[in-house]
Amino acid sequence: MQAGIPLVELWRGPFAESVHTGHAVICDAQGDIVEAWGDPTQVVLPRSSAKMLQALPLIESGAADAFSLSTAQLALSCASHQGARIHVDKVSAWLGDLGLGESDLRCGPQQSEDIPYRNQMICADEAPCQLHNNCSGKHAGFLTLAKHLGAGPEYIDPDHPVQLAGREAWERMTDEEVQGYGIDGCSAPNFATSLHGMARAMAKFATAAEGTPQQRLVSAMTTHPELVAGETRACTNLMRAMDGRVAIKTGAEGFFIAIIPEKKLGVALKIADGTTRASECAIAAILVKLGVLDVDHPETRKYLDAPILNRRGIQTGWQRATDALR
Amino acid sequence: MQAGIPLVELWRGPFAESVHTGHAVICDAQGDIVEAWGDPTQVVLPRSSAKMLQALPLIESGAADAFSLSTAQLALSCASHQGARIHVDKVSAWLGDLGLGESDLRCGPQQSEDIPYRNQMICADEAPCQLHNNCSGKHAGFLTLAKHLGAGPEYIDPDHPVQLAGREAWERMTDEEVQGYGIDGCSAPNFATSLHGMARAMAKFATAAEGTPQQRLVSAMTTHPELVAGETRACTNLMRAMDGRVAIKTGAEGFFIAIIPEKKLGVALKIADGTTRASECAIAAILVKLGVLDVDHPETRKYLDAPILNRRGIQTGWQRATDALR
Repeated sequence: MQAGIPLVELWRGPFAESVHTGHAVICDAQGDIVEAWGDPTQVVLPRSSAKMLQALPLIESGAADAFSLSTAQLALSCASHQGARIHVDKVSAWLGDLGLGESDLRCGPQQSEDIPYRNQMICADEAPCQLHNNCSGKHAGFLTLAKHLGAGPEYIDPDHPVQLAGREAWERMTDEEVQGYGIDGCSAPNFATSLHGMARAMAKFATAAEGTPQQRLVSAMTTHPELVAGETRACTNLMRAMDGRVAIKTGAEGFFIAIIPEKKLGVALKIADGTTRASECAIAAILVKLGVLDVDHPETRKYLDAPILNRRGIQTGWQRATDALR
Repeated sequence: MQAGIPLVELWRGPFAESVHTGHAVICDAQGDIVEAWGDPTQVVLPRSSAKMLQALPLIESGAADAFSLSTAQLALSCASHQGARIHVDKVSAWLGDLGLGESDLRCGPQQSEDIPYRNQMICADEAPCQLHNNCSGKHAGFLTLAKHLGAGPEYIDPDHPVQLAGREAWERMTDEEVQGYGIDGCSAPNFATSLHGMARAMAKFATAAEGTPQQRLVSAMTTHPELVAGETRACTNLMRAMDGRVAIKTGAEGFFIAIIPEKKLGVALKIADGTTRASECAIAAILVKLGVLDVDHPETRKYLDAPILNRRGIQTGWQRATDALR
């Protein structure tokens, strides 16, 4: 990973106190680069920004229709949800429909990121379980596909039919051979591709015809922004601010993608240092630049040119996108 | 802020997934650079890494002795504590000694970072107060100096005698005119200096004679590592691992300093993107390189070449210092 170019700055008083560098690519329907920052050939692990790639075989195999999955379930299969009750309850019910339970998940337990719910659990001395894991919807999708294929329970093994199908979809959509994989926070393999390849895949989602597996996933995400992340989260807030016209998805270590059907464009960006505050600011800047996010929308201002407040609520500075992203 | 050079990498499987760049300087007793990474002339806000500079006037003015401050109180005046009971109780008692209370602080409330204590407060529906603010010890020091000087209650104003004294100490120790200031998270001004100037000031602390205000602060920090940060914190863990021979102090936005009396050296480093995981790794690497921290100490391994575990406890990668820091 090269550092790339400055994309986001943190100002405190008259000083640029910190700077985030990275790489970003906008791709068109032909998979060609419309605009790029830094180096589009960087090899990246898109982490949770690739959940739509991992969910594709769920629909393409016929599993989603065989199990009559709802658009809410398709949205959850692409989600990094915050483990709020709405997410936990829906994934739990989904597993029940499959005749499975929490112990069939392989994502590991994670504390809920919904603060009131988390506090309630702490005070009730309730331990978080795998349903609270931000990836539990993706894993419910994996289990649905595994059941449809009659495959074994260790669905996160890189050689398991579920992961082989994910790899095939990944290569087909990026138009690249994957360059290997890392193991993700949820224990599933996450495949390495170029940033350009990832933006190309997102452009294919943006141009997918009505009723195709790709278009169904994009539509599910934009129809249920509250399931893709949750209240207070950037993915949810910004998808709502764009009135369902654009699908966006964060990934760990500073990743973000956007799928923009009305422009037939895909976007992929990686903050080199892996920081979420910067990936959120940079994707907001690119969405504004592309004319699909209103710069004056109150949600935009939480990420792009957001004031930094201290513990007495005094504004001490700004988080701003660099001129390169304007 | 320029990006500087790669100092820390995050590896996932065979991929360098993220990289942190920055600047670092090691200075000797003459204030000359022994070794540097990136650009030593970068203008920085050292944030909480400068608390020893802000605490100097407390001793130099005679206030510390007039109020018979203990070494524990001097350590707290340099601390970014985690608001555990031990910190809150001591700061509360200190304010009581001054005839003051929590409402005289101007640092703002902050949730305790001591997780069991925080959870206990949440379940008891107790709101955090200014005593829990990581800077409450520094502010108790400010209030002590203000009382000694007979100055007014708004001790965080940049023109207040307490802050003017801090600015004078800052300039004298860095051997530089400050280049302005930003307002810190705790509402006090934080002065801008070069990274070289900050390392020079730390070298002066490292070479201060027994009984000088500088040496008394260093000794207080190394005598009470649990007060400078708290259990599980890097400053506390690594100072303990070095058996009180070295004082280290983190600062917000990726800052770290070290004061090494036995080598007569001062260190200052800034991770350009402001990330704590990287500043902790980089300072550990430099301390190992200088021969004052054992590379095989279990505490060292939490920061330098630390394994990255996922939610099932599987190691997915490493956080490592780059070869530049070896």
